[in-house]
Amino acid sequence: MPELRKDPITSRWVIISTERGKRPSDFFPEPERKKGGFCPFCPGNEGKTPPEILVYRNDGGQPNSPGWNLRVVPNKFPALQIEGDLNRQGDGVYDKMNGIGAHEVVIETPNHDETLSTMPENKVEEVLWAFRDRILDLKKDPRFRYILVFKNHGEAAGASLEHPHSQLIATPIIPKRVREEVDGAKDYYDYKERCVYCDIVRQEQSHEGRLITENQDFISIAPFASRFPFETWILPKIHDPFFEDAQKHEYINLSRILKEILMRMDKVLSRPAYNFIIHNSPLREADVPTYHWHLELMPKLTRVAGFEWGSGFYINPTPPEEAAHFMREAKI
Amino acid sequence: MPELRKDPITSRWVIISTERGKRPSDFFPEPERKKGGFCPFCPGNEGKTPPEILVYRNDGGQPNSPGWNLRVVPNKFPALQIEGDLNRQGDGVYDKMNGIGAHEVVIETPNHDETLSTMPENKVEEVLWAFRDRILDLKKDPRFRYILVFKNHGEAAGASLEHPHSQLIATPIIPKRVREEVDGAKDYYDYKERCVYCDIVRQEQSHEGRLITENQDFISIAPFASRFPFETWILPKIHDPFFEDAQKHEYINLSRILKEILMRMDKVLSRPAYNFIIHNSPLREADVPTYHWHLELMPKLTRVAGFEWGSGFYINPTPPEEAAHFMREAKI
Repeated sequence: MPELRKDPITSRWVIISTERGKRPSDFFPEPERKKGGFCPFCPGNEGKTPPEILVYRNDGGQPNSPGWNLRVVPNKFPALQIEGDLNRQGDGVYDKMNGIGAHEVVIETPNHDETLSTMPENKVEEVLWAFRDRILDLKKDPRFRYILVFKNHGEAAGASLEHPHSQLIATPIIPKRVREEVDGAKDYYDYKERCVYCDIVRQEQSHEGRLITENQDFISIAPFASRFPFETWILPKIHDPFFEDAQKHEYINLSRILKEILMRMDKVLSRPAYNFIIHNSPLREADVPTYHWHLELMPKLTRVAGFEWGSGFYINPTPPEEAAHFMREAKI
Repeated sequence: MPELRKDPITSRWVIISTERGKRPSDFFPEPERKKGGFCPFCPGNEGKTPPEILVYRNDGGQPNSPGWNLRVVPNKFPALQIEGDLNRQGDGVYDKMNGIGAHEVVIETPNHDETLSTMPENKVEEVLWAFRDRILDLKKDPRFRYILVFKNHGEAAGASLEHPHSQLIATPIIPKRVREEVDGAKDYYDYKERCVYCDIVRQEQSHEGRLITENQDFISIAPFASRFPFETWILPKIHDPFFEDAQKHEYINLSRILKEILMRMDKVLSRPAYNFIIHNSPLREADVPTYHWHLELMPKLTRVAGFEWGSGFYINPTPPEEAAHFMREAKI
């Protein structure tokens, strides 16, 4: 059973993943991903993943058999475990609980060599619908306080399999970074009686220096205080706390802008490894109308080193105005 | 002039380093470090660094000439710039100021191929004295609120030069991660009337499961809520807010335990890349007797991916009790 442990100084939680338990020799040489080797996510290999939780298919075929467009399966090596009680307990100065949660994999397409930037917009849209459907289902479990949707693309960004996939992790705790954003947005709202993200959307639309692209429902910017070179945010133009409550036209327009941004990034940065995360409102908060969901995309171009670990301060060698310029000018 | 920018949601500051200004083509292919190539930190090449700020030498020779044991020089590509005013200003929803600060490099030894784990203890001790001397000098500048000492060892940990060196960055803002620790320690003190680090030292000494080694003045542990595999902390046994106020015997014992820990880590993990940072009390706080300085050491074994970036939650595949066991048992 994985364990959730709290740092007694900063209240930062970590997941001690006993199931994955790595010994010193597991870290080197770094495991190689074989190009063209066996892929558990390819059609025909459905038996190599746990049984599917959700499937999109047009052919009326059997579950866990080829013919699907998209599958969601439990992660075979989950960071958190679905069965059990939280069982919170103290040990002197320390606090811990069982590592309860959900860890799911969205297999985005049957085609091993596609990516979100090369697949058609309507397939990107299906991935977004899968995020929504899984969030709505996981929300029913009263043990969970947060659901994080994220994607690791490319080995340098932490992807251990090449086949296009993204992930959801449901946690029994609201993660620190989300807490900071939710609290920050609430403080701003209490002071100004406006949403800070709405204010950012308005300011970036009128200045244009950091604006990359926009459509009817979304705006994409290089954020003012970008931590990383070419960090890119996609924000809904209309205030909305919950990703899963979006209108159909919003998923269509999100798939369009996400695909476009990834195509621009592929062009400017030669198909970089990247991470993206969807920051959504926490579950079961009394009322958080002040938060504004959004997507944060970070190509993996630099290394995080001692100064960043020690300070939480980031050094970004590319001004966001320059990054936005290159992204806007890319011929796609 | 580098710029300090504040994220309007989380109040996280970033350094936008205009001097280092990287264009897309600068990120790939990744710059290669040539083994055996020209080294600006080796004796005879003193002219390739800015003039030294501090030097330890026994031979009575000229400044910036060979014969030194240790040199401190300004970083040739500083993240922050020493000259100028802070010039705080707003721009709509955003806040920024000039990137004022100090960025110095401690060239730890004239020997290119030595490391802190292979050099004699008294040379490690000299490095600690250099940290102290520079902190005491930088403290005099009223613009600075914090001085972070850190080391990036090995390319995977972000070191751009091979020659043994560590760094100091003085910032006009108290970094977020330090603020969290200082505030956390104060909250604990207000509640319990004890220092949380002192309580950790006592608890780890009596349990031994996470204790790696100790001497008269210091204890080394795999922390309960380790973020990374083989994360290791070195804590003074006696409560002390300021690194630079330590007694002579403490620098001697710190050099001993630091060298020992690095030797153990070299043995267990085959000379890994690593980062260490010294977390010290902020400057010019009214009174922070509740903080307890310490050193945090993190070998670079895993990749930080989307879940960690999105949540601030870490997944650690090696329980600290196992890491401590391997570190204790290493034959050095």
